[in-house]
Amino acid sequence: MKYTAHINIMPLKELLDPQGKAVTNSLHNLGLTQVQGARVGKHVTLAIEAADQAAAEQATTEACKKLLANQVMEAFTFTVTEG
Amino acid sequence: MKYTAHINIMPLKELLDPQGKAVTNSLHNLGLTQVQGARVGKHVTLAIEAADQAAAEQATTEACKKLLANQVMEAFTFTVTEG
Repeated sequence: MKYTAHINIMPLKELLDPQGKAVTNSLHNLGLTQVQGARVGKHVTLAIEAADQAAAEQATTEACKKLLANQVMEAFTFTVTEG
Repeated sequence: MKYTAHINIMPLKELLDPQGKAVTNSLHNLGLTQVQGARVGKHVTLAIEAADQAAAEQATTEACKKLLANQVMEAFTFTVTEG
């Protein structure tokens, strides 16, 4: 079965996010003053061939822990959908 | 009212994604051969102060078009939630 994992990897809330700060300032300069804060992370989609949903979720967790996310500075969340 | 916009900015499907290719290869090297493909983009969250949901969505669209996404190479999708 084919599954698609949608992963969000974001800097931890406790940490400064200079890229997000830069985005906020740039949006203010563009006149979008209603934006009060921004945080910037990564979005990764994986195409996974797995026996079932649980196996696909396990592969996704492993990919995040081993490669995609630096757990000292980042937190990941994901959803796995069929197809 | 406070709203949070969750924005995904991904390389267009028609375009090569060298970073995604590198992730796929690295995952294979780590033994995760069930991963058949990966695409890497950005995830941005914005904290927005707006009168209503429609105004928050409009500010988000403007932020994406003016700053966050390069529409020649990237497509953006977002959801806006209260709080």
